[in-house]
Amino acid sequence: MVLKLHGLPMSICTATVMTCLHEKGVDFELVPVDLFAAENKQPSFLAKNPFGQVPAFEDGDLKLFESRAITQYVAQEYADKGTNLVYQDSKKGAILLVWKEVEAHQFDPAASKLSWELAYKPFFGITTDQAVAEENEAKLGKFLDVYETRLSKFKYLAGDCFTLADLHHLPCLHYLMGTRVKELFQSRPHVSAWVADITARPAWSKVVAMTKQN
Amino acid sequence: MVLKLHGLPMSICTATVMTCLHEKGVDFELVPVDLFAAENKQPSFLAKNPFGQVPAFEDGDLKLFESRAITQYVAQEYADKGTNLVYQDSKKGAILLVWKEVEAHQFDPAASKLSWELAYKPFFGITTDQAVAEENEAKLGKFLDVYETRLSKFKYLAGDCFTLADLHHLPCLHYLMGTRVKELFQSRPHVSAWVADITARPAWSKVVAMTKQN
Repeated sequence: MVLKLHGLPMSICTATVMTCLHEKGVDFELVPVDLFAAENKQPSFLAKNPFGQVPAFEDGDLKLFESRAITQYVAQEYADKGTNLVYQDSKKGAILLVWKEVEAHQFDPAASKLSWELAYKPFFGITTDQAVAEENEAKLGKFLDVYETRLSKFKYLAGDCFTLADLHHLPCLHYLMGTRVKELFQSRPHVSAWVADITARPAWSKVVAMTKQN
Repeated sequence: MVLKLHGLPMSICTATVMTCLHEKGVDFELVPVDLFAAENKQPSFLAKNPFGQVPAFEDGDLKLFESRAITQYVAQEYADKGTNLVYQDSKKGAILLVWKEVEAHQFDPAASKLSWELAYKPFFGITTDQAVAEENEAKLGKFLDVYETRLSKFKYLAGDCFTLADLHHLPCLHYLMGTRVKELFQSRPHVSAWVADITARPAWSKVVAMTKQN
């Protein structure tokens, strides 16, 4: 039985789950969802995710949505396959929980807005709102100061191993590194080394290759 | 050794963790943080949470922040105490992961803005931005339509048991039920019954009592 991922590689949340599945080395079928035709708002998709957002995921009878829930499930359920993306130890696991939340509630709100303003809007021929961009660049800079301190002590955010806390950053990072925001990452040596390390992972390279095909 | 929670009851994120600790029946010391004196931006607090937000949490040498990371840790670490707030079964656990993410990424962004505009701003004598309030009321209404369908099939969001997915809604719900947004919950019978059920829990009543003292 093959896992099914409904979404498309250029969606940040779909790319996050694809990266996780590649890290675990589990086979999956990517089922395209035509967002431009609003296929995600049709009843057949809403039965998979009632909020109408990609991705949706199927593991047999189990239907999941919300990218970070899917990656956590995959990391636990396929624990014996591929890269170990979570800690079994409860104290180390607690620190991983913290840094997963940091990505979700500190990094992502600023990084998503910047991806939209500086990468997606130009791609779609829409004018960037410079005030929104600058506000979020200032926020992101402050967050990356905290990351710089953290990454001066540990190779990865949750400790000495690459985990979901790092993985969840990859798609947004990828788009931001193609914009002026790249400077915010490159001016901080430990953040810069971390970006170089995690973006060089083979699982991520596979996702980038698929992004370019679409 | 007593657990330490640094924060204050009127902070939504602190109240979430307090509720979890009361559900688990574990003793903790609430260490007040004077937000009005910007104590959360002082070095002694930043050593506990480098992002300078309440709450921060200590379990012996383990220092945690981000409320949803703390509740997940407490629910797992003190699994044998008080209310069971997570599922051990991997499929049920995956559904819980989904609805925890729904709270964090669908409900909370709209509900937090509404709490700020309609509850906190009037309390502090600041004028409500009606455009922001109306935009988020419309979003919340759509999300609650999904909740209504879900809660017509299951007593709680993640299934038949009260879990962290429900608990995480409580503090924001409390503030919203004192505003015009109450109507959005009361007009949906299954949502209304769920609100009545979870807000009647003794652990939550203890937190409400402390909120009124501060």
